Amino acid sequence: MSSEYQTQLSLPRDTFSYPVRVYYQDTDTGGVVYHATYLNFMERARYEWLREMGLAVNYLIQEYKMVFMVRSLNIEYFKPAFLDDLLHVTVQVTEIGRSRITLFQQVVRDHVMLVSAVIHVVCVGVDCLKPVRVPALLRQKIEK
Amino acid sequence: MSSEYQTQLSLPRDTFSYPVRVYYQDTDTGGVVYHATYLNFMERARYEWLREMGLAVNYLIQEYKMVFMVRSLNIEYFKPAFLDDLLHVTVQVTEIGRSRITLFQQVVRDHVMLVSAVIHVVCVGVDCLKPVRVPALLRQKIEK
Amino acid sequence: MSSEYQTQLSLPRDTFSYPVRVYYQDTDTGGVVYHATYLNFMERARYEWLREMGLAVNYLIQEYKMVFMVRSLNIEYFKPAFLDDLLHVTVQVTEIGRSRITLFQQVVRDHVMLVSAVIHVVCVGVDCLKPVRVPALLRQKIEK
Amino acid sequence: MSSEYQTQLSLPRDTFSYPVRVYYQDTDTGGVVYHATYLNFMERARYEWLREMGLAVNYLIQEYKMVFMVRSLNIEYFKPAFLDDLLHVTVQVTEIGRSRITLFQQVVRDHVMLVSAVIHVVCVGVDCLKPVRVPALLRQKIEK
Repeated sequence: MSSEYQTQLSLPRDTFSYPVRVYYQDTDTGGVVYHATYLNFMERARYEWLREMGLAVNYLIQEYKMVFMVRSLNIEYFKPAFLDDLLHVTVQVTEIGRSRITLFQQVVRDHVMLVSAVIHVVCVGVDCLKPVRVPALLRQKIEK
Repeated sequence: MSSEYQTQLSLPRDTFSYPVRVYYQDTDTGGVVYHATYLNFMERARYEWLREMGLAVNYLIQEYKMVFMVRSLNIEYFKPAFLDDLLHVTVQVTEIGRSRITLFQQVVRDHVMLVSAVIHVVCVGVDCLKPVRVPALLRQKIEK
Repeated sequence: MSSEYQTQLSLPRDTFSYPVRVYYQDTDTGGVVYHATYLNFMERARYEWLREMGLAVNYLIQEYKMVFMVRSLNIEYFKPAFLDDLLHVTVQVTEIGRSRITLFQQVVRDHVMLVSAVIHVVCVGVDCLKPVRVPALLRQKIEK
Repeated sequence: MSSEYQTQLSLPRDTFSYPVRVYYQDTDTGGVVYHATYLNFMERARYEWLREMGLAVNYLIQEYKMVFMVRSLNIEYFKPAFLDDLLHVTVQVTEIGRSRITLFQQVVRDHVMLVSAVIHVVCVGVDCLKPVRVPALLRQKIEK
Protein backbone atom coordinates (compact mmCIF):
# COMPACT_ATOMS: atom_id res chain seq x y z
CA MET A 1 0.00 0.00 0.00
CA SER A 2 1.63 3.22 -1.14
CA SER A 3 1.93 6.12 1.20
CA GLU A 4 0.35 8.25 -1.50
CA TYR A 5 -2.71 6.04 -1.21
CA GLN A 6 -2.73 6.43 2.56
CA THR A 7 -2.87 10.19 2.36
CA GLN A 8 -5.85 10.04 0.00
CA LEU A 9 -8.72 11.85 1.58
CA SER A 10 -12.18 10.55 2.09
CA LEU A 11 -14.04 13.64 3.25
CA PRO A 12 -17.53 13.38 4.74
CA ARG A 13 -19.98 13.63 1.86
CA ASP A 14 -21.44 16.99 2.79
CA THR A 15 -18.17 18.82 3.49
CA PHE A 16 -18.22 22.30 1.99
CA SER A 17 -15.49 22.71 -0.59
CA TYR A 18 -14.51 25.76 -2.62
CA PRO A 19 -12.31 25.62 -5.75
CA VAL A 20 -9.29 27.92 -6.06
CA ARG A 21 -6.96 28.19 -9.06
CA VAL A 22 -3.31 29.16 -8.36
CA TYR A 23 -2.15 32.30 -10.23
CA TYR A 24 1.23 34.08 -10.29
CA GLN A 25 -0.01 36.45 -7.57
CA ASP A 26 -0.24 33.45 -5.19
CA THR A 27 3.27 32.10 -5.73
CA ASP A 28 6.79 33.13 -4.76
CA THR A 29 10.24 32.86 -6.32
CA GLY A 30 10.72 29.52 -4.55
CA GLY A 31 8.38 28.14 -7.22
CA VAL A 32 5.54 27.30 -4.82
CA VAL A 33 2.49 29.00 -3.31
CA TYR A 34 3.64 31.53 -0.67
CA HIS A 35 2.79 30.26 2.82
CA ALA A 36 0.62 33.23 3.82
CA THR A 37 -1.46 32.90 0.64
CA TYR A 38 -3.20 29.79 2.01
CA LEU A 39 -4.81 32.01 4.67
CA ASN A 40 -6.33 34.06 1.86
CA PHE A 41 -7.60 30.88 0.16
CA MET A 42 -9.15 29.79 3.48
CA GLU A 43 -10.84 33.14 4.03
CA ARG A 44 -12.43 32.89 0.57
CA ALA A 45 -13.74 29.40 1.38
CA ARG A 46 -15.18 30.48 4.77
CA TYR A 47 -17.08 33.38 3.20
CA GLU A 48 -18.46 31.28 0.37
CA TRP A 49 -19.53 28.69 2.95
CA LEU A 50 -21.39 31.42 4.88
CA ARG A 51 -22.94 32.67 1.64
CA GLU A 52 -24.15 29.16 0.79
CA MET A 53 -26.01 29.13 4.14
CA GLY A 54 -27.62 32.45 3.18
CA LEU A 55 -25.49 34.40 5.66
CA ALA A 56 -23.16 36.47 3.51
CA VAL A 57 -20.69 38.71 5.33
CA ASN A 58 -22.61 41.87 4.43
CA TYR A 59 -25.87 40.36 5.71
CA LEU A 60 -24.24 39.55 9.06
CA ILE A 61 -22.92 43.12 9.31
CA GLN A 62 -26.30 44.68 8.47
CA GLU A 63 -28.59 42.34 10.42
CA TYR A 64 -26.42 41.51 13.41
CA LYS A 65 -23.79 44.27 13.45
CA MET A 66 -21.20 41.51 13.72
CA VAL A 67 -18.09 40.34 11.93
CA PHE A 68 -15.77 37.40 12.46
CA MET A 69 -12.32 38.02 13.82
CA VAL A 70 -9.61 35.35 13.66
CA ARG A 71 -8.47 34.70 17.25
CA SER A 72 -5.86 32.06 16.51
CA LEU A 73 -4.88 29.60 13.87
CA ASN A 74 -2.69 26.55 13.68
CA ILE A 75 -1.63 25.70 10.15
CA GLU A 76 0.42 22.74 8.86
CA TYR A 77 2.06 22.62 5.46
CA PHE A 78 2.45 19.04 4.15
CA LYS A 79 3.07 19.44 0.43
CA PRO A 80 3.51 22.49 -1.77
CA ALA A 81 1.04 23.73 -4.38
CA PHE A 82 2.22 25.14 -7.72
CA LEU A 83 1.18 27.62 -10.40
CA ASP A 84 -1.95 26.55 -12.30
CA ASP A 85 -2.97 23.94 -9.70
CA LEU A 86 -6.68 23.55 -9.07
CA LEU A 87 -7.13 23.36 -5.32
CA HIS A 88 -10.19 22.66 -3.21
CA VAL A 89 -10.51 24.37 0.15
CA THR A 90 -12.81 22.72 2.69
CA VAL A 91 -14.66 24.13 5.71
CA GLN A 92 -15.87 22.02 8.66
CA VAL A 93 -17.07 23.28 12.04
CA THR A 94 -15.69 21.28 14.94
CA GLU A 95 -17.07 23.30 17.87
CA ILE A 96 -19.39 26.22 18.61
CA GLY A 97 -19.10 28.15 21.86
CA ARG A 98 -20.95 31.23 23.08
CA SER A 99 -19.13 33.61 20.74
CA ARG A 100 -16.39 31.37 19.32
CA ILE A 101 -16.45 28.93 16.42
CA THR A 102 -13.70 26.40 15.76
CA LEU A 103 -13.17 25.42 12.13
CA PHE A 104 -11.08 22.77 10.44
CA GLN A 105 -9.99 23.69 6.93
CA GLN A 106 -8.01 21.74 4.37
CA VAL A 107 -6.42 22.58 1.05
CA VAL A 108 -6.68 19.57 -1.23
CA ARG A 109 -5.32 18.76 -4.72
CA ASP A 110 -6.47 15.57 -6.45
CA HIS A 111 -7.70 14.09 -3.15
CA VAL A 112 -4.33 14.69 -1.49
CA MET A 113 -4.22 17.09 1.46
CA LEU A 114 -1.56 19.80 1.06
CA VAL A 115 -2.33 22.09 3.98
CA SER A 116 -4.63 21.92 6.99
CA ALA A 117 -5.58 24.43 9.66
CA VAL A 118 -7.53 24.68 12.88
CA ILE A 119 -8.94 28.20 13.10
CA HIS A 120 -10.66 29.87 16.05
CA VAL A 121 -12.87 32.76 14.99
CA VAL A 122 -14.84 34.98 17.34
CA CYS A 123 -18.05 36.90 16.58
CA VAL A 124 -17.37 40.54 17.45
CA GLY A 125 -19.44 43.70 17.26
CA VAL A 126 -18.69 45.61 14.08
CA ASP A 127 -17.93 48.85 15.96
CA CYS A 128 -16.65 47.74 19.37
CA LEU A 129 -14.68 44.69 18.17
CA LYS A 130 -15.77 42.99 21.45
CA PRO A 131 -17.16 39.43 21.52
CA VAL A 132 -20.91 38.99 20.92
CA ARG A 133 -23.05 35.84 20.85
CA VAL A 134 -23.01 33.62 17.76
CA PRO A 135 -26.31 34.59 16.01
CA ALA A 136 -28.97 31.92 16.68
CA LEU A 137 -29.72 31.54 12.97
CA LEU A 138 -26.06 30.82 12.20
CA ARG A 139 -25.91 28.31 15.05
CA GLN A 140 -29.02 26.54 13.72
CA LYS A 141 -27.69 26.38 10.18
CA ILE A 142 -24.34 25.00 11.33
CA GLU A 143 -25.89 22.40 13.65
CA LYS A 144 -28.24 21.12 10.97
CA MET B 1 29.25 54.70 -24.09
CA SER B 2 27.37 51.69 -22.79
CA SER B 3 23.58 51.68 -22.73
CA GLU B 4 23.81 50.67 -19.08
CA TYR B 5 25.56 53.95 -18.45
CA GLN B 6 22.90 55.86 -20.34
CA THR B 7 20.13 54.57 -18.10
CA GLN B 8 22.04 55.67 -15.00
CA LEU B 9 19.94 58.07 -13.04
CA SER B 10 20.91 61.44 -11.79
CA LEU B 11 18.01 62.42 -9.58
CA PRO B 12 17.60 65.97 -8.33
CA ARG B 13 19.46 66.21 -5.02
CA ASP B 14 16.43 66.66 -2.80
CA THR B 15 14.29 63.87 -4.30
CA PHE B 16 12.57 61.87 -1.56
CA SER B 17 13.66 58.25 -1.66
CA TYR B 18 12.51 55.32 0.48
CA PRO B 19 14.43 52.02 0.73
CA VAL B 20 12.59 48.72 0.21
CA ARG B 21 14.07 45.23 0.50
CA VAL B 22 12.57 42.45 -1.67
CA TYR B 23 11.26 39.44 0.30
CA TYR B 24 9.63 36.19 -0.86
CA GLN B 25 6.20 37.77 -0.30
CA ASP B 26 6.99 40.28 -3.07
CA THR B 27 8.04 37.78 -5.74
CA ASP B 28 6.31 35.24 -7.96
CA THR B 29 7.19 31.87 -9.44
CA GLY B 30 8.60 33.63 -12.53
CA GLY B 31 11.57 34.49 -10.29
CA VAL B 32 10.91 38.23 -10.25
CA VAL B 33 8.94 40.78 -8.23
CA TYR B 34 5.22 40.42 -9.07
CA HIS B 35 4.05 43.40 -11.14
CA ALA B 36 1.33 44.53 -8.70
CA THR B 37 3.81 44.52 -5.80
CA TYR B 38 5.46 47.71 -7.11
CA LEU B 39 2.22 49.57 -6.38
CA ASN B 40 2.58 48.51 -2.75
CA PHE B 41 6.20 49.70 -2.71
CA MET B 42 5.08 53.04 -4.15
CA GLU B 43 2.31 53.45 -1.56
CA ARG B 44 4.86 52.90 1.22
CA ALA B 45 7.11 55.58 -0.26
CA ARG B 46 4.25 58.11 -0.64
CA TYR B 47 3.23 57.70 3.00
CA GLU B 48 6.76 57.99 4.32
CA TRP B 49 7.19 61.10 2.18
CA LEU B 50 4.05 62.58 3.78
CA ARG B 51 5.30 61.58 7.21
CA GLU B 52 8.63 63.30 6.57
CA MET B 53 6.70 66.53 5.90
CA GLY B 54 4.91 66.06 9.22
CA LEU B 55 1.64 65.07 7.55
CA ALA B 56 1.21 61.39 8.35
CA VAL B 57 -1.90 59.69 6.99
CA ASN B 58 -3.56 59.54 10.41
CA TYR B 59 -2.92 63.25 10.96
CA LEU B 60 -4.59 64.09 7.63
CA ILE B 61 -7.59 61.94 8.57
CA GLN B 62 -7.94 63.52 12.02
CA GLU B 63 -7.19 67.14 11.15
CA TYR B 64 -8.64 67.39 7.66
CA LYS B 65 -11.04 64.40 7.45
CA MET B 66 -9.33 63.56 4.18
CA VAL B 67 -7.57 60.64 2.56
CA PHE B 68 -5.88 60.20 -0.79
CA MET B 69 -7.52 58.08 -3.42
CA VAL B 70 -5.64 56.89 -6.49
CA ARG B 71 -7.52 58.17 -9.54
CA SER B 72 -5.27 56.72 -12.23
CA LEU B 73 -1.79 55.42 -12.71
CA ASN B 74 0.47 54.76 -15.63
CA ILE B 75 3.27 52.34 -14.82
CA GLU B 76 6.15 51.13 -17.00
CA TYR B 77 8.28 48.09 -16.24
CA PHE B 78 11.80 48.37 -17.69
CA LYS B 79 13.81 45.75 -15.81
CA PRO B 80 12.84 43.13 -13.24
CA ALA B 81 13.78 43.19 -9.55
CA PHE B 82 14.72 40.01 -7.71
CA LEU B 83 14.64 38.47 -4.24
CA ASP B 84 16.94 40.24 -1.76
CA ASP B 85 17.37 43.33 -3.96
CA LEU B 86 17.61 46.65 -2.16
CA LEU B 87 15.40 49.08 -4.02
CA HIS B 88 14.86 52.80 -3.62
CA VAL B 89 11.46 54.24 -4.35
CA THR B 90 11.31 57.94 -5.16
CA VAL B 91 8.48 60.49 -4.89
CA GLN B 92 8.32 63.75 -6.89
CA VAL B 93 5.31 66.03 -7.29
CA THR B 94 4.86 67.23 -10.87
CA GLU B 95 1.57 69.13 -10.51
CA ILE B 96 -0.90 70.27 -7.85
CA GLY B 97 -4.48 71.11 -8.78
CA ARG B 98 -7.47 72.08 -6.63
CA SER B 99 -7.94 68.57 -5.25
CA ARG B 100 -5.59 66.52 -7.41
CA ILE B 101 -1.86 65.88 -7.08
CA THR B 102 0.25 64.32 -9.83
CA LEU B 103 3.26 62.32 -8.70
CA PHE B 104 6.16 60.76 -10.53
CA GLN B 105 7.61 57.72 -8.78
CA GLN B 106 10.55 55.52 -9.69
CA VAL B 107 11.88 52.22 -8.41
CA VAL B 108 15.65 52.28 -8.62
CA ARG B 109 18.38 49.66 -7.99
CA ASP B 110 22.02 50.75 -8.01
CA HIS B 111 21.15 53.99 -9.82
CA VAL B 112 19.31 52.09 -12.58
CA MET B 113 15.59 52.72 -12.99
CA LEU B 114 13.56 49.50 -13.02
CA VAL B 115 10.02 50.85 -12.90
CA SER B 116 8.43 54.29 -13.19
CA ALA B 117 4.90 55.53 -12.70
CA VAL B 118 2.84 58.67 -13.10
CA ILE B 119 0.14 58.61 -10.44
CA HIS B 120 -2.85 60.93 -10.07
CA VAL B 121 -4.20 61.01 -6.53
CA VAL B 122 -7.22 62.99 -5.37
CA CYS B 123 -7.91 64.33 -1.88
CA VAL B 124 -11.32 62.98 -0.84
CA GLY B 125 -13.42 63.33 2.28
CA VAL B 126 -12.91 60.36 4.60
CA ASP B 127 -16.65 59.63 4.80
CA CYS B 128 -18.10 60.87 1.51
CA LEU B 129 -15.19 59.83 -0.72
CA LYS B 130 -15.88 63.03 -2.76
CA PRO B 131 -13.06 65.40 -3.81
CA VAL B 132 -12.02 68.09 -1.33
CA ARG B 133 -9.37 70.82 -1.61
CA VAL B 134 -5.70 69.94 -1.12
CA PRO B 135 -5.02 71.16 2.45
CA ALA B 136 -3.16 74.51 2.35
CA LEU B 137 -0.44 73.22 4.67
CA LEU B 138 0.26 70.27 2.38
CA ARG B 139 0.35 72.59 -0.64
CA GLN B 140 2.82 74.87 1.13
CA LYS B 141 5.09 72.04 2.16
CA ILE B 142 5.10 70.58 -1.35
CA GLU B 143 5.76 73.93 -3.02
CA LYS B 144 8.65 74.70 -0.73
CA MET C 1 -30.77 61.29 -19.07
CA SER C 2 -28.95 60.35 -15.91
CA SER C 3 -25.18 60.14 -15.90
CA GLU C 4 -25.56 56.73 -14.28
CA TYR C 5 -27.36 55.61 -17.40
CA GLN C 6 -24.61 57.01 -19.60
CA THR C 7 -21.95 54.92 -17.91
CA GLN C 8 -23.96 51.71 -18.39
CA LEU C 9 -21.93 49.30 -20.43
CA SER C 10 -22.95 47.47 -23.50
CA LEU C 11 -20.05 45.11 -24.08
CA PRO C 12 -19.63 43.24 -27.35
CA ARG C 13 -21.50 39.95 -27.00
CA ASP C 14 -18.47 37.68 -27.03
CA THR C 15 -16.31 39.63 -24.56
CA PHE C 16 -14.61 37.30 -22.12
CA SER C 17 -15.69 38.05 -18.57
CA TYR C 18 -14.56 36.45 -15.31
CA PRO C 19 -16.48 36.80 -12.00
CA VAL C 20 -14.63 37.89 -8.84
CA ARG C 21 -16.11 38.21 -5.37
CA VAL C 22 -14.60 40.86 -3.02
CA TYR C 23 -13.29 39.45 0.28
CA TYR C 24 -11.67 41.16 3.28
CA GLN C 25 -8.23 40.34 1.83
CA ASP C 26 -9.02 42.61 -1.14
CA THR C 27 -10.08 45.68 0.85
CA ASP C 28 -8.36 48.32 2.96
CA THR C 29 -9.24 50.39 6.01
CA GLY C 30 -10.63 53.11 3.72
CA GLY C 31 -13.59 50.77 3.26
CA VAL C 32 -12.95 50.05 -0.41
CA VAL C 33 -10.98 47.61 -2.55
CA TYR C 34 -7.26 48.49 -2.33
CA HIS C 35 -6.08 50.00 -5.62
CA ALA C 36 -3.38 47.40 -6.31
CA THR C 37 -5.85 44.54 -5.80
CA TYR C 38 -7.50 45.27 -9.17
CA LEU C 39 -4.25 44.21 -10.86
CA ASN C 40 -4.61 40.83 -9.17
CA PHE C 41 -8.24 40.57 -10.33
CA MET C 42 -7.10 41.40 -13.87
CA GLU C 43 -4.34 38.78 -13.82
CA ARG C 44 -6.90 36.13 -12.79
CA ALA C 45 -9.15 37.12 -15.69
CA ARG C 46 -6.30 37.03 -18.23
CA TYR C 47 -5.25 33.55 -17.20
CA GLU C 48 -8.81 32.19 -17.24
CA TRP C 49 -9.23 33.74 -20.69
CA LEU C 50 -6.08 31.91 -21.86
CA ARG C 51 -7.34 28.70 -20.27
CA GLU C 52 -10.67 29.01 -22.09
CA MET C 53 -8.74 29.11 -25.37
CA GLY C 54 -6.96 25.91 -24.32
CA LEU C 55 -3.69 27.74 -23.64
CA ALA C 56 -3.24 27.60 -19.87
CA VAL C 57 -0.15 29.24 -18.44
CA ASN C 58 1.51 25.90 -17.68
CA TYR C 59 0.87 24.69 -21.23
CA LEU C 60 2.55 27.81 -22.65
CA ILE C 61 5.54 27.27 -20.38
CA GLN C 62 5.89 23.59 -21.31
CA GLU C 63 5.14 23.80 -25.03
CA TYR C 64 6.61 27.19 -25.90
CA LYS C 65 9.00 27.94 -23.00
CA MET C 66 7.29 31.31 -22.76
CA VAL C 67 5.54 33.42 -20.17
CA PHE C 68 3.84 36.80 -20.34
CA MET C 69 5.49 39.77 -18.72
CA VAL C 70 3.61 42.99 -18.07
CA ARG C 71 5.50 45.78 -19.88
CA SER C 72 3.26 48.67 -18.93
CA LEU C 73 -0.23 49.38 -17.73
CA ASN C 74 -2.49 52.39 -17.61
CA ILE C 75 -5.28 52.01 -15.10
CA GLU C 76 -8.16 54.39 -14.30
CA TYR C 77 -10.29 54.18 -11.17
CA PHE C 78 -13.81 55.57 -11.71
CA LYS C 79 -15.82 54.21 -8.79
CA PRO C 80 -14.86 52.12 -5.76
CA ALA C 81 -15.80 48.48 -5.16
CA PHE C 82 -16.76 47.24 -1.70
CA LEU C 83 -16.67 44.09 0.42
CA ASP C 84 -18.98 41.34 -0.86
CA ASP C 85 -19.41 42.94 -4.30
CA LEU C 86 -19.65 40.58 -7.24
CA LEU C 87 -17.43 41.99 -9.97
CA HIS C 88 -16.89 40.92 -13.55
CA VAL C 89 -13.47 41.39 -15.10
CA THR C 90 -13.33 41.52 -18.89
CA VAL C 91 -10.51 40.81 -21.34
CA GLN C 92 -10.34 42.18 -24.91
CA VAL C 93 -7.33 42.18 -27.22
CA THR C 94 -6.89 45.48 -29.05
CA GLU C 95 -3.59 44.79 -30.86
CA ILE C 96 -1.11 41.97 -31.49
CA GLY C 97 2.45 42.73 -32.48
CA ARG C 98 5.43 40.44 -33.05
CA SER C 99 5.93 39.70 -29.36
CA ARG C 100 3.56 42.19 -27.74
CA ILE C 101 -0.18 41.98 -27.04
CA THR C 102 -2.27 44.97 -25.98
CA LEU C 103 -5.28 44.23 -23.82
CA PHE C 104 -8.19 46.31 -22.61
CA GLN C 105 -9.63 45.12 -19.31
CA GLN C 106 -12.58 46.41 -17.32
CA VAL C 107 -13.90 45.75 -13.85
CA VAL C 108 -17.68 45.94 -13.93
CA ARG C 109 -20.41 45.80 -11.25
CA ASP C 110 -24.06 45.62 -12.33
CA HIS C 111 -23.19 46.85 -15.84
CA VAL C 112 -21.35 49.91 -14.45
CA MET C 113 -17.63 50.17 -15.15
CA LEU C 114 -15.58 50.75 -11.98
CA VAL C 115 -12.04 50.40 -13.29
CA SER C 116 -10.44 50.06 -16.72
CA ALA C 117 -6.92 49.37 -17.87
CA VAL C 118 -4.85 49.19 -21.03
CA ILE C 119 -2.15 46.58 -20.49
CA HIS C 120 0.83 45.80 -22.69
CA VAL C 121 2.17 42.29 -22.15
CA VAL C 122 5.19 40.81 -23.88
CA CYS C 123 5.88 37.13 -24.59
CA VAL C 124 9.29 36.36 -23.09
CA GLY C 125 11.39 33.20 -22.89
CA VAL C 126 10.89 31.48 -19.54
CA ASP C 127 14.63 31.41 -18.79
CA CYS C 128 16.08 34.42 -20.61
CA LEU C 129 13.15 36.80 -19.98
CA LYS C 130 13.85 38.22 -23.48
CA PRO C 131 11.03 38.84 -25.99
CA VAL C 132 9.99 35.91 -28.21
CA ARG C 133 7.34 35.71 -30.94
CA VAL C 134 3.68 35.39 -29.97
CA PRO C 135 2.99 31.64 -30.57
CA ALA C 136 1.14 31.16 -33.87
CA LEU C 137 -1.59 29.09 -32.20
CA LEU C 138 -2.29 31.87 -29.69
CA ARG C 139 -2.38 34.44 -32.51
CA GLN C 140 -4.88 32.30 -34.46
CA LYS C 141 -7.13 31.79 -31.45
CA ILE C 142 -7.15 35.51 -30.66
CA GLU C 143 -7.80 36.57 -34.26
CA LYS C 144 -10.69 34.14 -34.62
CA MET D 1 -2.24 46.40 39.11
CA SER D 2 -3.88 46.99 35.77
CA SER D 3 -4.12 44.20 33.25
CA GLU D 4 -2.59 46.56 30.70
CA TYR D 5 0.47 46.70 32.91
CA GLN D 6 0.58 42.92 33.16
CA THR D 7 0.75 42.51 29.40
CA GLN D 8 3.72 44.89 29.19
CA LEU D 9 6.62 43.07 27.68
CA SER D 10 10.09 42.80 29.05
CA LEU D 11 11.96 41.13 26.23
CA PRO D 12 15.44 39.71 26.78
CA ARG D 13 17.91 42.48 26.01
CA ASP D 14 19.37 40.93 22.88
CA THR D 15 16.11 39.95 21.20
CA PHE D 16 16.16 40.82 17.51
CA SER D 17 13.44 43.29 16.63
CA TYR D 18 12.45 44.75 13.26
CA PRO D 19 10.26 47.86 12.83
CA VAL D 20 7.24 47.75 10.52
CA ARG D 21 4.91 50.64 9.70
CA VAL D 22 1.25 49.80 8.88
CA TYR D 23 0.10 51.09 5.45
CA TYR D 24 -3.27 50.83 3.67
CA GLN D 25 -2.03 47.71 1.85
CA ASP D 26 -1.80 45.92 5.22
CA THR D 27 -5.31 46.68 6.44
CA ASP D 28 -8.85 45.55 5.59
CA THR D 29 -12.28 47.14 5.57
CA GLY D 30 -12.78 46.01 9.19
CA GLY D 31 -10.41 48.87 10.07
CA VAL D 32 -7.58 46.64 11.31
CA VAL D 33 -4.52 44.87 9.93
CA TYR D 34 -5.69 41.82 7.91
CA HIS D 35 -4.84 38.60 9.79
CA ALA D 36 -2.67 37.09 7.03
CA THR D 37 -0.60 40.28 6.79
CA TYR D 38 1.15 39.48 10.09
CA LEU D 39 2.75 36.46 8.40
CA ASN D 40 4.28 38.86 5.87
CA PHE D 41 5.56 41.09 8.69
CA MET D 42 7.09 38.03 10.38
CA GLU D 43 8.79 36.88 7.17
CA ARG D 44 10.39 40.32 6.81
CA ALA D 45 11.71 40.15 10.37
CA ARG D 46 13.12 36.63 9.93
CA TYR D 47 15.03 37.65 6.81
CA GLU D 48 16.42 40.81 8.36
CA TRP D 49 17.46 38.72 11.37
CA LEU D 50 19.33 36.35 9.03
CA ARG D 51 20.88 39.31 7.23
CA GLU D 52 22.10 40.78 10.51
CA MET D 53 23.94 37.50 11.15
CA GLY D 54 25.58 37.85 7.73
CA LEU D 55 23.43 35.06 6.25
CA ALA D 56 21.10 36.79 3.82
CA VAL D 57 18.64 34.60 1.93
CA ASN D 58 20.56 34.92 -1.34
CA TYR D 59 23.81 33.92 0.38
CA LEU D 60 22.18 30.77 1.78
CA ILE D 61 20.87 29.89 -1.69
CA GLN D 62 24.25 30.45 -3.37
CA GLU D 63 26.53 28.95 -0.71
CA TYR D 64 24.36 26.15 0.65
CA LYS D 65 21.73 25.63 -2.08
CA MET D 66 19.14 25.86 0.69
CA VAL D 67 16.04 27.83 1.52
CA PHE D 68 13.70 27.83 4.50
CA MET D 69 10.26 26.38 4.12
CA VAL D 70 7.56 27.02 6.72
CA ARG D 71 6.41 23.60 7.99
CA SER D 72 3.79 24.79 10.46
CA LEU D 73 2.81 27.84 12.43
CA ASN D 74 0.62 28.57 15.39
CA ILE D 75 -0.42 32.20 15.59
CA GLU D 76 -2.47 34.01 18.26
CA TYR D 77 -4.12 37.39 17.77
CA PHE D 78 -4.51 39.30 21.06
CA LYS D 79 -5.14 42.90 20.01
CA PRO D 80 -5.59 44.51 16.61
CA ALA D 81 -3.11 46.85 14.92
CA PHE D 82 -4.28 49.88 12.95
CA LEU D 83 -3.23 52.08 10.03
CA ASP D 84 -0.10 54.13 10.74
CA ASP D 85 0.91 52.04 13.76
CA LEU D 86 4.61 51.50 14.28
CA LEU D 87 5.08 47.82 15.13
CA HIS D 88 8.14 45.88 16.18
CA VAL D 89 8.46 42.27 15.11
CA THR D 90 10.76 40.07 17.18
CA VAL D 91 12.61 36.85 16.35
CA GLN D 92 13.80 34.33 18.94
CA VAL D 93 15.02 30.77 18.30
CA THR D 94 13.62 28.28 20.80
CA GLU D 95 14.98 25.02 19.32
CA ILE D 96 17.32 23.79 16.59
CA GLY D 97 17.04 20.24 15.28
CA ARG D 98 18.88 18.49 12.46
CA SER D 99 17.05 20.37 9.70
CA ARG D 100 14.32 22.15 11.65
CA ILE D 101 14.38 25.46 13.54
CA THR D 102 11.63 26.56 15.90
CA LEU D 103 11.09 30.31 16.22
CA PHE D 104 9.00 32.43 18.53
CA GLN D 105 7.93 35.73 17.00
CA GLN D 106 5.95 38.60 18.46
CA VAL D 107 4.36 41.71 17.04
CA VAL D 108 4.62 44.50 19.60
CA ARG D 109 3.27 48.08 19.78
CA ASP D 110 4.40 50.35 22.60
CA HIS D 111 5.64 47.36 24.63
CA VAL D 112 2.26 45.61 24.34
CA MET D 113 2.15 42.29 22.51
CA LEU D 114 -0.50 42.21 19.77
CA VAL D 115 0.27 38.92 18.04
CA SER D 116 2.57 35.99 18.74
CA ALA D 117 3.52 32.91 16.76
CA VAL D 118 5.47 29.70 17.07
CA ILE D 119 6.87 28.85 13.66
CA HIS D 120 8.60 25.66 12.55
CA VAL D 121 10.81 26.17 9.53
CA VAL D 122 12.78 23.46 7.75
CA CYS D 123 15.98 23.87 5.72
CA VAL D 124 15.31 22.35 2.29
CA GLY D 125 17.39 21.98 -0.86
CA VAL D 126 16.63 24.77 -3.30
CA ASP D 127 15.87 22.35 -6.14
CA CYS D 128 14.58 19.19 -4.45
CA LEU D 129 12.61 20.92 -1.67
CA LYS D 130 13.71 17.99 0.60
CA PRO D 131 15.11 18.58 4.12
CA VAL D 132 18.84 19.22 4.44
CA ARG D 133 20.98 19.87 7.55
CA VAL D 134 20.94 23.30 9.17
CA PRO D 135 24.24 24.85 7.91
CA ALA D 136 26.90 24.66 10.67
CA LEU D 137 27.64 28.37 10.38
CA LEU D 138 23.99 29.27 10.93
CA ARG D 139 23.83 26.90 13.91
CA GLN D 140 26.93 28.52 15.42
CA LYS D 141 25.61 32.05 14.94
CA ILE D 142 22.27 31.17 16.50
CA GLU D 143 23.81 29.35 19.47
CA LYS D 144 26.17 32.22 20.27
